[in-house]
Amino acid sequence: MYKILDKVNSPIDLKKLNEAEILRLSVEIREFLLDTVSKTGGHLASNLGVVELTIALHLSFDSPSDRLIWDVGHQSYIHKILTGRKSEFCSLRKLNGMSGFLKINDNEHDIFGAGHSSTSISAAYGVACARTIKNEKFNVVAIIGDGALTGGMAFEALNNIGHTNENVIIVLNDNEMSISENIGGVSKYLSKLRTNKKYFIVKNKAHSILDKANGFGTKLTNGIKTIKGSIKYLFVPGIFFEDLGITYIGPIDGHNMKELSDSFARAKNVEGPVLVHVITKKGKGYLPAENSPDLYHGVGTFDRNKGIVKKNSITFSTVLGESLVNCARLNEKVLALTAAMPTGTGLTNFKNTFPKRYIDVGIAEQHAVTASAGLAIEGLIPVFAVYSTFLQRAYDQIVHDVCLQNLKVIFAIDRSGVVGADGETHNGIFDIAYLSHIPNITILVPRDGDNLSLMLDYAVNVHEGPIAIRYPRSTTTFNKNIDSLNLQPRILRQGSDGVIFAIGNMIEVACLASKKLQEENIFIRVVEMPRIKPLDEKLVLEYTSNIDNVFTIEDHVVKSGFGDIILDTLVKNNVKFSNFNKFGYPDKFIEHGSIEEIHKIYGLTEDYVYNYIYKVIRRKDGEN
Amino acid sequence: MYKILDKVNSPIDLKKLNEAEILRLSVEIREFLLDTVSKTGGHLASNLGVVELTIALHLSFDSPSDRLIWDVGHQSYIHKILTGRKSEFCSLRKLNGMSGFLKINDNEHDIFGAGHSSTSISAAYGVACARTIKNEKFNVVAIIGDGALTGGMAFEALNNIGHTNENVIIVLNDNEMSISENIGGVSKYLSKLRTNKKYFIVKNKAHSILDKANGFGTKLTNGIKTIKGSIKYLFVPGIFFEDLGITYIGPIDGHNMKELSDSFARAKNVEGPVLVHVITKKGKGYLPAENSPDLYHGVGTFDRNKGIVKKNSITFSTVLGESLVNCARLNEKVLALTAAMPTGTGLTNFKNTFPKRYIDVGIAEQHAVTASAGLAIEGLIPVFAVYSTFLQRAYDQIVHDVCLQNLKVIFAIDRSGVVGADGETHNGIFDIAYLSHIPNITILVPRDGDNLSLMLDYAVNVHEGPIAIRYPRSTTTFNKNIDSLNLQPRILRQGSDGVIFAIGNMIEVACLASKKLQEENIFIRVVEMPRIKPLDEKLVLEYTSNIDNVFTIEDHVVKSGFGDIILDTLVKNNVKFSNFNKFGYPDKFIEHGSIEEIHKIYGLTEDYVYNYIYKVIRRKDGEN
Repeated sequence: MYKILDKVNSPIDLKKLNEAEILRLSVEIREFLLDTVSKTGGHLASNLGVVELTIALHLSFDSPSDRLIWDVGHQSYIHKILTGRKSEFCSLRKLNGMSGFLKINDNEHDIFGAGHSSTSISAAYGVACARTIKNEKFNVVAIIGDGALTGGMAFEALNNIGHTNENVIIVLNDNEMSISENIGGVSKYLSKLRTNKKYFIVKNKAHSILDKANGFGTKLTNGIKTIKGSIKYLFVPGIFFEDLGITYIGPIDGHNMKELSDSFARAKNVEGPVLVHVITKKGKGYLPAENSPDLYHGVGTFDRNKGIVKKNSITFSTVLGESLVNCARLNEKVLALTAAMPTGTGLTNFKNTFPKRYIDVGIAEQHAVTASAGLAIEGLIPVFAVYSTFLQRAYDQIVHDVCLQNLKVIFAIDRSGVVGADGETHNGIFDIAYLSHIPNITILVPRDGDNLSLMLDYAVNVHEGPIAIRYPRSTTTFNKNIDSLNLQPRILRQGSDGVIFAIGNMIEVACLASKKLQEENIFIRVVEMPRIKPLDEKLVLEYTSNIDNVFTIEDHVVKSGFGDIILDTLVKNNVKFSNFNKFGYPDKFIEHGSIEEIHKIYGLTEDYVYNYIYKVIRRKDGEN
Repeated sequence: MYKILDKVNSPIDLKKLNEAEILRLSVEIREFLLDTVSKTGGHLASNLGVVELTIALHLSFDSPSDRLIWDVGHQSYIHKILTGRKSEFCSLRKLNGMSGFLKINDNEHDIFGAGHSSTSISAAYGVACARTIKNEKFNVVAIIGDGALTGGMAFEALNNIGHTNENVIIVLNDNEMSISENIGGVSKYLSKLRTNKKYFIVKNKAHSILDKANGFGTKLTNGIKTIKGSIKYLFVPGIFFEDLGITYIGPIDGHNMKELSDSFARAKNVEGPVLVHVITKKGKGYLPAENSPDLYHGVGTFDRNKGIVKKNSITFSTVLGESLVNCARLNEKVLALTAAMPTGTGLTNFKNTFPKRYIDVGIAEQHAVTASAGLAIEGLIPVFAVYSTFLQRAYDQIVHDVCLQNLKVIFAIDRSGVVGADGETHNGIFDIAYLSHIPNITILVPRDGDNLSLMLDYAVNVHEGPIAIRYPRSTTTFNKNIDSLNLQPRILRQGSDGVIFAIGNMIEVACLASKKLQEENIFIRVVEMPRIKPLDEKLVLEYTSNIDNVFTIEDHVVKSGFGDIILDTLVKNNVKFSNFNKFGYPDKFIEHGSIEEIHKIYGLTEDYVYNYIYKVIRRKDGEN
């Protein structure tokens, strides 16, 4: 079906192609991408943008003996295609199928896994140090997006790497419109000049040349002194690439094979770390994606010809966004913060409605949390909307800057629980574990959209101190009825044979299981727990009294999760029970698949809970 | 006693002094610092270095209406002295006394707490945004050390702040010898030029001037083009101060009051963010500290005249350092990493013995962890020696880059448990909680130096996958006997009235309590738990069988700590008990004081454990 692509099953095959065939290959790869991703869903725009870049990387370097280390990993589809995994694309992001991110050892060409951003330069630095110590010879290449470079750890790595003489090639995949304007004659010239041997001579002589130029008139002298000052004095340890000792090449047109190959060839000859600045266009080759790269960043299935048709389903994210706009209307102290995820977290409307009270800090979760603390000490009410998995990066700031100081910062934690197709690197199944042991924080879990809306209102207008609201990636109901919020444990179904304490999206599972058990004359109480910290111990004890079988259920690991909070309370109060079981994820990383499939595998379903409890109760009754 | 200092109880008093009096004040403050810190211990060198800087800040700004936000906080002694807290210095870092760091609301001048590094610019940004939203007028000043600027979150903040027009003054307190050479005529000239109105005109015209210079000969032209390229093209979003929109002033002599005052005055007039680069000398005014600023960074009590006399006590840190050198001698794959703490973590000897296998990444814990992962994939064995409280900053990297990929990275976690005088921001009482729910990690807790040494050897030469060894800030025994390591639970004292599972430094407490109880005919088994994850469930169950009272003890919060690991195992296996109690810290931040005092307050002592268990057992026996 694909004339060239079908022949390419490894980088070795790639190297056999002539120039025309490579051009054709890039066209076919785009065809293939659109064909498959429109059927499976996945990351589209970023991969369309790196077709030539990835081909050039595999032509210029010898993976796997040369180490290609990708940042984020959702830009690695072309890499996967070129390393023999075309046929696996039909299973992309599906249960037991190929991951949408990069997984270590998935393939010999996958050197280092990636899902979260800004990690590649650090990993490349480690690999390069190892190479030096082992006295081996190979190239180490980190491929990082310009967005990922705003993450603090990327800066930590740049700062460190420049002080060494390790040969690391950092490929900066720059697809921001804002800086594409820098492509031009001068910069192309400079690029050649810099990597040319002559450049180093010129650079060393630059200051003496400028000194000599001091005679050419006052205006010029002042100008030159300023410029000279900019270069030499405008620094801090590690900020400036060249002061850091990182050679700069670029900007390069990331869709021009020859420029790319030439630049990589030059980069290989540079001593020490080098950064190749490559300009690419997100969505390249598919007009709808070029025009709306954000919309085509991560997509579901869609019709290639019509493009994505927006659905109007209500998700927890949309509820958060809409409710936050309402809160901000009524309370002028309310602000929203995001770390480069306005769309995913539902803040688009907020951004448009209250632009002055909206802060996008870039991929910089640590800064977002401590900046929120700064806003809070001035009496404003910051709401940081963030995915559970990314908030992990700000754990220390939550402890040290928010909770220790007991500041009113609201964490709207989206994508809690398993997230489905994005899988292990993106699941939000640790948040209760990494938050609940921090003093002073309050943790809420809404059961549905209306509940989330009320909780947000409570967090904004009533609560004092740090508060986290965790909610899943899913659609929900949002009827905007004016129920009042009740944070206390609440009995949803009565029963005395056992009790299930349930949170969030697991409340329904618990209720359905209880209902089914009732048909067998087993009566299981279901208690909804809107607030898991601080725990309403009195009611938990009351609802457990004289009940012999206690269960908890959560879309979270059971280790240090919600179940442990309940267990701790019961044991502390010397409550006796015959059985205690926590439904949730075991102590392992949870794979990708649809959310429903994952819930089923790990027993977070009506049927599993029903069966488990049935057996426990009937065994006790002596039936087994 | 102090002619001037005694009159200064607030910044208002300070402003009444004339130039000569201020000079005298700086002398008296140094006297006062040496007098008090030599008696109490504390941070000396960094505070001696910021005497003039702090005076100048309080002269130039009106705290608290102007917001002074300090980074790290151990450089805030002069600030405390000038804001009415001289008399509290006798209680510095003592129980119920003044904190050695900055605590929010300790005083109206303490705007934002600080203990961990690199937080101040983020907090200042938040405060500045709040000011804009509230339409208020005041200055916001962040004071940050050059070391702290290597921390990723400081870069995240700089990157963000430059894109805004918020007036924030960043004072860079630069006390690194390596960059003091930049003080000179040109840079002073540039500093004046830059903040002068004329500068902006010059800057705008710079490129056109350079274009005109193109006619002056090839060599000059090339030089100029290179320089021009450096300015315009050597960028990535947010790297370069001026490209970022952050005006640079400096370098300033940080011990020259006039230069400081002039620079701050100029900084106030700059629109948008401005960075004032101040050069100071750590230890200034006390020769021993000037010569060995590291030694005088954080000190115990010492004799002013003789200086610090090094003690040869053996701590867990020295054992780690010595053992790691031995490991490295026998296994060439072993490397040591530190995040700017070679002395504190005991790596000095390693650094000198194996300089090529030693990596100091600066204050950059995130990068250190992921670089370790990079080293591990190449088959080397990285040992990251780090304080428990600072490893918090790399939680996501431990999850995402090390444990998810199941890489052999060894975390040597120093300062676990309470750390004494450094207090709440530095206690290592959350590490079990933030590590134990991460899949694939192994966690060990040595009881003494010999045990630590054996565990390190095991981690290096036997274990596969991620492993953490946590040990406290304390002296220990290190006999270098050739005991073999046993990671299984081990009974240290027999008994059937109850069992205490104990870890690390709490093993001795448990044994002593058990011994004392034996005198009352209460026999409590003590089980040492060298490995807490994975847990040896079989032996834990065996050692609990037919025992009715179960206790756990740990130098850690009880929430999600070691006790919960034991409890989870018992409940999962349906073990019944009458009592279960976890000795450890409650759900709050733990204050400073001596380690012994803190242990006593929270019941981690022989007496408390004895009394608690005595009451439990006797009550059951019907005596009460």
